[in-house]
Amino acid sequence: MCLACYNHRMPFTLALDVGGTHMRAAVFPDGQDSPSYQTRIRTYAPGENPMDRLMGLIREVASSGDQLRAVGIAVPGPIDPHRGMIVTAPNLPSWVEVPIAEHITEEFGAPALLGNDANLAAVGEWRFGAGIGHHHLIYLTISTGIGGGVISNDQLLLGSQGFAGELGHVTILPDGPICSCGQRGHLEAISAGPGISAYVVEQLNLGRPSSLQGTPKPDTKVISQAALAGDPLAKEAFDRAGYYLGLAIANYLMIFNPSIVILGGGVSQVGKLLLAPVRKVVKQTVLSEHYLQNLTITQAALGDDAGLYGALALARGIARDQ
Amino acid sequence: MCLACYNHRMPFTLALDVGGTHMRAAVFPDGQDSPSYQTRIRTYAPGENPMDRLMGLIREVASSGDQLRAVGIAVPGPIDPHRGMIVTAPNLPSWVEVPIAEHITEEFGAPALLGNDANLAAVGEWRFGAGIGHHHLIYLTISTGIGGGVISNDQLLLGSQGFAGELGHVTILPDGPICSCGQRGHLEAISAGPGISAYVVEQLNLGRPSSLQGTPKPDTKVISQAALAGDPLAKEAFDRAGYYLGLAIANYLMIFNPSIVILGGGVSQVGKLLLAPVRKVVKQTVLSEHYLQNLTITQAALGDDAGLYGALALARGIARDQ
Repeated sequence: MCLACYNHRMPFTLALDVGGTHMRAAVFPDGQDSPSYQTRIRTYAPGENPMDRLMGLIREVASSGDQLRAVGIAVPGPIDPHRGMIVTAPNLPSWVEVPIAEHITEEFGAPALLGNDANLAAVGEWRFGAGIGHHHLIYLTISTGIGGGVISNDQLLLGSQGFAGELGHVTILPDGPICSCGQRGHLEAISAGPGISAYVVEQLNLGRPSSLQGTPKPDTKVISQAALAGDPLAKEAFDRAGYYLGLAIANYLMIFNPSIVILGGGVSQVGKLLLAPVRKVVKQTVLSEHYLQNLTITQAALGDDAGLYGALALARGIARDQ
Repeated sequence: MCLACYNHRMPFTLALDVGGTHMRAAVFPDGQDSPSYQTRIRTYAPGENPMDRLMGLIREVASSGDQLRAVGIAVPGPIDPHRGMIVTAPNLPSWVEVPIAEHITEEFGAPALLGNDANLAAVGEWRFGAGIGHHHLIYLTISTGIGGGVISNDQLLLGSQGFAGELGHVTILPDGPICSCGQRGHLEAISAGPGISAYVVEQLNLGRPSSLQGTPKPDTKVISQAALAGDPLAKEAFDRAGYYLGLAIANYLMIFNPSIVILGGGVSQVGKLLLAPVRKVVKQTVLSEHYLQNLTITQAALGDDAGLYGALALARGIARDQ
């Protein structure tokens, strides 16, 4: 019996969150919503296959024969939830079309379920975070990209192939900047971290006076500090990101009529700098005031743990309330 | 017993479609998907309250004591499906906040359910039209406005208050023309009939050579005839409408990952003039080719009957497949 199991001595669920840089595992004993044990390793190590590292990580917390109920795994990129496979993943090319869930079930004798990380972060916030009690929820994670997840009528929207909820890859400004995906004018291209930085760099290159002149590649943290210190360009950069994010959120209100919109991810942690322009444009551009009745727009509660908690909900079978 | 009942002599469901100009009623005997009787009257008549006219229309086909199973009613504007009331309706101001469903149930002793007309048209196409067999469906009706409805995992998306699916009132061009709702750059403002006409008029006023010069207020029918005859401005007007419609549809693919997109409404009947640019831009701007696998983009099958059939599905309890 492994150390983690020894510690809790009862049946447990294993939640995994796999990213491009780190993999995390957390053990949740039955009836407990906080982990009895968790660990984190780098996704890549010289001469090792990341998939082998994942299996090793699971072995560390769950030997076969343990009372492992189920495994939930949050992974980046579009996945095929039915086959338990990643479809495309720039950060994890060797995992594409590999039957991850099947591998895990074979070795550990427990059912394993795969979910897109942003989708599962939405589920995590819904079940354990800022969205508890809501039945219609939009979650957006704003960091180096923009991902999303939608809960409608207590169900995670997956779509016909499991690719639904790509809320950052929508055209919001047809002649706008090029997105990481290659398309033009996507929300992600404007309102994610790199889009905010690119705008500041562009304006600095145009000679705009700013305390950031001389900073070679200002990131959102540096820009937010400048904005808080009163730098007009830095403030404008967040106003612009918030404006287009607000337009997109207003669209999502008309499309989904949620009762809560939750903003997660590193960039959202700048708080009011982004949230104030978002709230302003949502109020200005929504179709009717009815959409704002009983609507909450708020920051996420679980931080980096959202995906892990979503994986827990998925594995426990409470990702869908059917 | 009324004539309609006499004709079918069995329990039946009543479907109603109420519009700004006409109200329709259709009687569907148990087990039959085509009406045994249907009728249509004007919504407004001098000195009469439209609500009284609706009740009279129902009386014509269903006396109390008949074997009326249930009544489904498609109405314009956002509705409160739980209370069976219209929330706002520019075409039917006297119906706002009136408990229509309750009135009907009181007089006719049968359950009555209300649905937004575009939402119910989506349901109609899903259950009886172009979308049969699909579990994830987007429906857009393009006429004087753009309405929509979404079926996800065999459920009509309603949202927390029943206002979901306003697929025409999304910002697609932030500095675009003003929409009927007062907001700027909505899809409806560009790709609905009035948006197409306004663009042609604007270009004619700029002196653009066109066979439409001299036509005071060309509508989409006249413009489509000119386009089919080779007029470059008329063709460009549909290309432009189709371009923005295609951008919005590509967004909806990323948001919902449907297996079918159905285009209904009068403007969609121009066919290829609109569908060709839509298909082109969808293919060009979609996030990945996976979204196009097993995807159908097609014209609606039920024409003006879609809302009526959706009302039938609602009343029969098959609008949701739970």
